[in-house]
Parts: sequence; C-alpha cells; structure tokens
Amino acid sequence: MSFNSIAEYEASRNALILADRALRADHKKGQLSELEALADKVVRDVRAAEAASIWSQDHEGIPHPFPGMEFLTGRSIIVQTKLFEILGKMPKGGLLHAHLDATVNVSFLLKTAMRYPAIHVRASTALNSTTIGSVLPQFLPLPQELRTSGEIALTDENYTPNTWVPLAKARETFDPKLGGPEGFDRWITASLTINPTEAYVTHNTVNKIWEKFVSTFVVNTPLVRYEPIHREYVREFILSSIADGISYVEPRINFLQKDIPFIAADAHTRIDHREVVKSFDEVVNNVKEELKEQGREDEFIGAKIIYSTIRSITPEGLEWYLQDCIALKKEFPHLIAGFDLVGPENVLKPLKYYIEPLLKFREMQKEAGVEIPFIFHAAETLGDGTEADMNLYDAILLGTKRIGHGFALVKHPKLIEICKERGIAIEVCPISNEILRLTSSMHMHPLPVLLNQGVTVALCSDDPSVFGSMGLTFDYFQVLAASEVTGLIQLGEMAKDSIKFSSMDPEEKERALAAWQKRWDIFLEYAATEGQKFLAQSQTTM
Amino acid sequence: MSFNSIAEYEASRNALILADRALRADHKKGQLSELEALADKVVRDVRAAEAASIWSQDHEGIPHPFPGMEFLTGRSIIVQTKLFEILGKMPKGGLLHAHLDATVNVSFLLKTAMRYPAIHVRASTALNSTTIGSVLPQFLPLPQELRTSGEIALTDENYTPNTWVPLAKARETFDPKLGGPEGFDRWITASLTINPTEAYVTHNTVNKIWEKFVSTFVVNTPLVRYEPIHREYVREFILSSIADGISYVEPRINFLQKDIPFIAADAHTRIDHREVVKSFDEVVNNVKEELKEQGREDEFIGAKIIYSTIRSITPEGLEWYLQDCIALKKEFPHLIAGFDLVGPENVLKPLKYYIEPLLKFREMQKEAGVEIPFIFHAAETLGDGTEADMNLYDAILLGTKRIGHGFALVKHPKLIEICKERGIAIEVCPISNEILRLTSSMHMHPLPVLLNQGVTVALCSDDPSVFGSMGLTFDYFQVLAASEVTGLIQLGEMAKDSIKFSSMDPEEKERALAAWQKRWDIFLEYAATEGQKFLAQSQTTM
Repeated sequence: MSFNSIAEYEASRNALILADRALRADHKKGQLSELEALADKVVRDVRAAEAASIWSQDHEGIPHPFPGMEFLTGRSIIVQTKLFEILGKMPKGGLLHAHLDATVNVSFLLKTAMRYPAIHVRASTALNSTTIGSVLPQFLPLPQELRTSGEIALTDENYTPNTWVPLAKARETFDPKLGGPEGFDRWITASLTINPTEAYVTHNTVNKIWEKFVSTFVVNTPLVRYEPIHREYVREFILSSIADGISYVEPRINFLQKDIPFIAADAHTRIDHREVVKSFDEVVNNVKEELKEQGREDEFIGAKIIYSTIRSITPEGLEWYLQDCIALKKEFPHLIAGFDLVGPENVLKPLKYYIEPLLKFREMQKEAGVEIPFIFHAAETLGDGTEADMNLYDAILLGTKRIGHGFALVKHPKLIEICKERGIAIEVCPISNEILRLTSSMHMHPLPVLLNQGVTVALCSDDPSVFGSMGLTFDYFQVLAASEVTGLIQLGEMAKDSIKFSSMDPEEKERALAAWQKRWDIFLEYAATEGQKFLAQSQTTM
Repeated sequence: MSFNSIAEYEASRNALILADRALRADHKKGQLSELEALADKVVRDVRAAEAASIWSQDHEGIPHPFPGMEFLTGRSIIVQTKLFEILGKMPKGGLLHAHLDATVNVSFLLKTAMRYPAIHVRASTALNSTTIGSVLPQFLPLPQELRTSGEIALTDENYTPNTWVPLAKARETFDPKLGGPEGFDRWITASLTINPTEAYVTHNTVNKIWEKFVSTFVVNTPLVRYEPIHREYVREFILSSIADGISYVEPRINFLQKDIPFIAADAHTRIDHREVVKSFDEVVNNVKEELKEQGREDEFIGAKIIYSTIRSITPEGLEWYLQDCIALKKEFPHLIAGFDLVGPENVLKPLKYYIEPLLKFREMQKEAGVEIPFIFHAAETLGDGTEADMNLYDAILLGTKRIGHGFALVKHPKLIEICKERGIAIEVCPISNEILRLTSSMHMHPLPVLLNQGVTVALCSDDPSVFGSMGLTFDYFQVLAASEVTGLIQLGEMAKDSIKFSSMDPEEKERALAAWQKRWDIFLEYAATEGQKFLAQSQTTM
C-alpha cells in the first residue's frame, strides 16, 4: 500500500479499524443516541482516571495492582472504585450460567443455618492453631433423636473427633484463642471459599485449584440441601440477583441422587427432585407476587432450571437422569430449560463417553411430547485437543443451545462459524475462569477474541459464593476494566443478549427486553451524571 | 442435527474435526509418507509416556510440574526428557526473531570477556551478603592508560564504590564467603538472566518483568559491544545455532548511536555501524568457509541483519536511522534484510508516533535505489485497544513483511485475514512471551488460535541468553508439549515456513529448503527409531 498524505493514511487506518471491529456487538449496533455516546464516553473517562489514580497507587499487600488483575487480590480495590459503583446500577439482563449451590454469600448461609437446631457440625480432630488450617468442617442436619447438646467445644482438646455439635453451640463455644465466634466464622468461610493464596500460590494450576473448589461443595451441600434452608437460599439468590440488576435467572441444579441428596425438614427423609423443583417454583412465585405488590414486577421476569448431573456417572446411569428430567419437564414445563452434564472436564468423562444415551434423548423426548435442549458445559479447559477441548465438537453436534464456558472455543475456526450461524451463545464466566486458573488475569482472557469475531456472549458468574463475586457486577467490572475497546455499549449488548439467548419463552423475552430497555435508559442518565460528577471532583482534588 | 446411528454420528464428528483443522499447516500438507506418519505417531507416544512419567513425578522445588509449564521452573525437567533430546536433532530452518545482543549464553560471554585485559567491572558499593542481591555489575572496556591493577576486591569492605577492577582479577579475588570465583559468576549470571522468582513472584507483571529484562541489556552491552568480543559473540551465536539445527539466522541489531555504541579494540574509539556490519559479514563468511572445508555447507545457508532502533527516539531522530539503514543497505545489499523499531511497546512510543518518517521511507528508498521492507514488532502486549495493540494496524498498513510477536493478533479478525492474504508470517516467541508475562504457561498461549486459522508462524527465541533457552529446541519443545493437536509434522511445517518467509533471496531459499528436506528425512528416521527404543524401554521398566 502507498499513501500520498498523512490524511490519506489516517483515513485508511480508521477504515481498517472499523472493518476489524465490524463484527462486534457494539459496532453492529449502529448509530448511538446522544445519551448513549455520552454515557459511554464518560465511563471510559472514569475508567482512565481510575487506572491512573487508585490502580496506580500502592495498596497494602498488593504490590503492583492494575485494572483487571487477579480478582481475589484486587477485590478490595475494585469495591472502592467509581466504576464499580456505576456498574452496580446497570441492568444486567439474565444470569444464564450459575450453579445454584454456589450463588449465595457464605455469611447469609451461615446465619440462616444457625437458626435451624437440626444443623450440626463436626471435625475430624480437635481444632487448634495447627489443625484449623487443614481440617474442614462437616455439616449435617440431624433428626431430633440424634441431636446432641454439644457440651464439648470443637476447639476443646478433649473433643472426641467426629462428634456432632449443634451449629450455634459450636460457634458460641469456639476457643477465644482461635478468635471465638468470629474465628469460627472465618474457619467456615475459608472452607467455602477460595482465598488468594490458594488460587495464586499453593493451588496455582487448573487441576489443583479444582480440588479445593470441589471441596467447597462437599462442605456446603448438607447445609444448602436441607430443605428449609434451601428455600431461603433460593429466595436470597433471587433477591440478591434482583438487587444487582439481574432480572432473570437460569441456574443449573445438580441432581445426583445418592451422593448429594436434598433432605426434608425432619432432617431424615430424602426429598425427590420433583419436590425440589416444586419448592423452587413456589419461592419464585412468592418473590414475583411480592414484587408485584410493590409495583416492581418489571425487575424480575422469572427463573428456570437447567437440569444437571455429573460427568462421573455411567452411560446407563445417565439414562435414568434423562428420564427424570423428562418427567420433571412434563410436570413443570415452564421451569425445566435444558439438560447439562457438569464437573471438572479435565478429569471426568467426556461427552463422547455418553454418546449413546445422549443420542437417544431426542427420541425419548418425542415419545414424551416435550422438548429439552442440551445446554452443555464444554471446553472449560486449557487443553488443546484433549478430551475436554474436544467436548466442543460433541456439544455442537448434539445441538447444544448455548455453550457453558467454551473457554477453548477461540481455537476452533469452524466451530466459531457454526456458533454464529446457529446462534449458539457462549456463557463466559470471567472471574470463574481466572480463579480456576484458566487465565492469570482478565488481560489474558480470550473474551475479546469472541467479541471481535461476533460470537454472542452472555457474561455469567458461575459459582459466585466460592469466588466472593455475588451478582454480575464484578464480572462486568473485570471485563470493562481490562479492555480499551470494550465500553458501556458493548456491556449493554451483552446484557441484552443474555435475555435474547435465555430460555424464556417469546412473550417473556419481549417483556424482559422492554423492561431492560427502560431501565437501561435510566441507567445511562445515571452513569453519565454520576461519572461527570466524579470526573469534576477528581480534577479539583488533583 | 439428528443421527440415525452411532456410526453416522462418528462420521459427522470426524468430518467436523477435519473441517475445523483444515487450515492448519499440518493438515494442508496432505497425505503423509509412511515414515512421516510413523515418526509423528512415535513422538506423540513419547510425549504421552513422559506426561505420565517424568511430568507426573515430584521434583525437588517443583510442586506440581506439567508439560508446557513455566519454562524457568520446568527447564530442569525438560532437559531430562527424551522429547527434548529428539527435538534437539530436528532441523529447525531459520531463526527469524532474535536480538543479537541476547543470543549467546552467559558463561561463554563471561569466559570470553575474561580473556580481554581491557574489560573491567565495578559496583556501586562493596559487595557483601546483603548488597549482592541488589547491586548490579557494571562493565567497561578501558583503554590502556585507564586500566587498574584492581588491588582491592569488589567484596572487600574497603572497596571504594565505583572503582574499576580488571574482570579476571575481580573474579579471582571475589570473597570466598560469597562463593569465590563461582560466586562471582553467579552474581554476573543473575544480572544477565531472569530467574524464576523474578518472573513468577517479585516481577510477575509485564511492566515489572520488563524492568529486569531491560536491565540485563544495560549490564551486558559494554561487553557484547566491545568489538573483539562482538566478533567472537557473533561467531558463537552462529555456531551454536548451527549445532541446534538452525541453518539461517536473521537477528535484529539495535543501532542507537549515543546510548549503546560499539567500541573498538583500543577500548576508546567508537566504531560506526558500517564497521559493525562489515565485521558481522566477515564472521559469517569465515564460518561458511570453515563449514565448506568440512563438507558441511548445507548446514548453514547464511545470515542477514534486521536493522533496528528503539521506540524512544523522536520522529526527527528516526530519519537519521532510516538514512543510515539505507546507506548500509547500499553497501551491504546481501545483509540488510529489513527495518524495525524495538523496545517495550507498552511504555515506549507507538508506530503511529513515527508515521511521517515511516511513510517517507519508501520515497527515500526509491531515491537510493534500494528496497528495505519493514519487519515490525507489533502487539507484544496484553492490551486490548491500547497503543501497543493498535501497532498492528500501523504495521500492516505500512506493509510489514512479517510481524514480530503479534501476540494480540488473535483478537483481530480482519488483520488475520490480511496476514493470510498477503503472506505476512508471525514471529512467535513462546518462551519469551511466557517469561515476559504475556502468558502464564504455554497452555494459555494463543499460538493454537493462529495455527488453526492457517496463519503462517515461525517459532523464534527472541532473547535466549536472558531466558536460558539458547537455540530453538526449547521453544519447539514447549509448543509440542502443551498441545495434543500439534505433532512433529506441524513443527516441520513451521520450520519450513521459517525458511520460506525469511529474507533469503530465491536461490538461497531453494537451496535452504532442499537442504532442510534432506536433513528432515534423516531426522524422521532418527526420531522414529530413537522414540521406539525409548518406548520399548519404558515398558520394560514399568
């Protein structure tokens, strides 16, 4: 190429940039309104101002911070930023990828559990300053006849290993030398969350961190799946989502009969999947009614469930779950949105292993007169040509409606093409990917590759209670902070897509989109005003 | 999609995988010969066997090793593998991206420097166990009249800060408490290389590690650029490259008149760029002649220089370098291969800053009757829409022949298209990218995205003396170890492309390709035989 003038070069350069970004959702959007352009610009300015101020300062224990840095280390800075405050008010659309058991913050769970005398806790050895770092709490709701008085504290050297102590009592009697009740809370919290040292030092590989990750579920399951707690948990999940600007949720519930059962209020009877879905339905309906009474019905359109089971079962075992899912779909057609197989892809079975029952599923549905799309996890991996990576081929061949994670999708040009043709959206979980060591910071995340190729993306939180990233604001923040290309408009398009590519029915979608648009316009006003105020103030103080 | 049988599904799956990989160099290659297929398979088997053996064992100080792990930590395991031994024998084609001053291992440089009485060293303070970790050596060739006897050791508490000591003397008198002469060597080596703690702990961000990286050049320049040492250095670079199976080199030489001059044997006179190129030419010709005498002329086709200067100069300043480059091209048309601007892209000036002189360059060349392509570094960055990322637009608009690094290229669909259309090869430097913190391990490296999209890639070593990765074997190893898709055939195609996309003239290329193919066939035999022997042995010992 040759250019006759700088102006000619500049024109070619601008045209090339436009062509390169033409597939992005924010570019496809076309002309921005005055307000959109203003809000987008103001937010970019706020981001730049904070990159040069709060992110360039030293913070205790954070040697060299930067926007988009490791979430667990940077979180304390993030929550101080104006950018985070602004994004907190953004209407986020739907949450399309979250594992129900890991959606509510630990302190709520603990406080709730404390109110149920059935809940007991034990440890495999007496806790002291040496053992507390490695011994995990074990919870169980105990039926009346097995409950204990818990005379001996978990921290008492005379504590008999594995003796049950009522939860409230265990907390109350926790040795002051280990921090007393607050020390107890810290012990529990450490077992249910991933801390920076684990993610970035001791467990700094995908398979290592997954060991810790899985252990958080082992600990919390008996609490979360105790029916009375579960109802409160689901309710809190929905209410906190709404508070974060999320107007629809589509959580995955892990159904694994024997290993992770739901237990009834009597702390003895197992309740079946039908009961779980029914109670979920009731909670959702209650929330809807309450919101309606408050004139806030547009803030929450509803919830559906992606029926999931774990990639460790046998193909024969899977058939039972497929049948179970169909039965639930028949009874709760408005609730069952899809079917998925979950668990650590690098170590459990690939989709290919289940190909017989999965191919049969369509036939089974036909017979039953229902339709249940697959919404598969696939390629939540760093592998290149490993079974986990290859799951993408099977997910797509089996007609997956969306792809959970699809972290390795960027490596597959043909599959990207197919995703675009068929409208397969990718459920991208930025913070989850980073903490589970697929990427070291947001800057290494392949999200921009997908966005620039025009692949539809919905940002999701995955397991926010384990990551300390409840809601979607943190994930939106990380994405916005780590890119100079992405701005508010792109975030808005992703939020809209999280509605369009959800499992809502057409009427629900229409209502959700209209409600979102209304809130979006208000949000843009707010973002522009609030951002400008902040920028004016920053200039004065500089 | 619906399938009538598992067989039908399998057929569709295979077709989809083929379609997805159709653009890869190894797939475009077509039918493999029997030997190629065998060698590829055997090497895959060796890789798998070692992933399950040496990479799955505990190693001292390496808590959880894995193939493709952080190079500086994993190096001691890599060199024990059969895979590494096999790749060491592979004919690698050309080395298209390396900074001359960082191509020869530190111990050679130090031993060579020791033979020159002009070389002196000093420190800003006496060295003891406290200061040795932070004080850098400073080297300088001193003219006869300024040389010292170096009576007082650098480690003597009476050492006067910044007093020059002859290099050999400084080593000899180094305090035994600090390790004596070997302790001296360790001190020097630490200043010229990046260690795992720096890369993965204390300097674990791109900008931080670049500080250390740049400091290694500050330390080694007065050694490397002392003319008599420089000749030996260039010779050793070429000889060690040949020993590693590299048959052509195209290093970048940084020309920056004032700040990093070349000094003549008298340790006083600055020598001009013409002299530098002339001496390079002589060394190359000497090596060629020697090889010819030994009947080994096919092992080394030649060398060219990419004239580089640093992105910190002014646009006006750049004009001088462009003229200088043209003058050199006129005198050494067979040696000057291209022009580049180097240095940390995230902090120095973008290409856009230099657009006026860069646009003028074509006209200047025409007038002079020469042709010098740009071969630009671009997007060696994690930025998304930052100036460093945007350098890609300018590099491509300015007609760059290849792209150095192009780490962020995967984000740019239009630019990928253009690279393919115009045959712009990407100089990918896997180990450099990892140590300089663009990627945490090879598994997060975007290389597979480029390969699967059919972008031409040449693997390069960048600054191997700083990384301890001399030659290209280590880079090939990391790429092969971290992927299940990539095998020997893909490596061979990249090696061939490093010849095809080099700056050799057509006759040289033809000769290089023919020579490469001959050696490749021998290598395949060796790899198959050696690999099979290893696999047989492993089975016996298991």
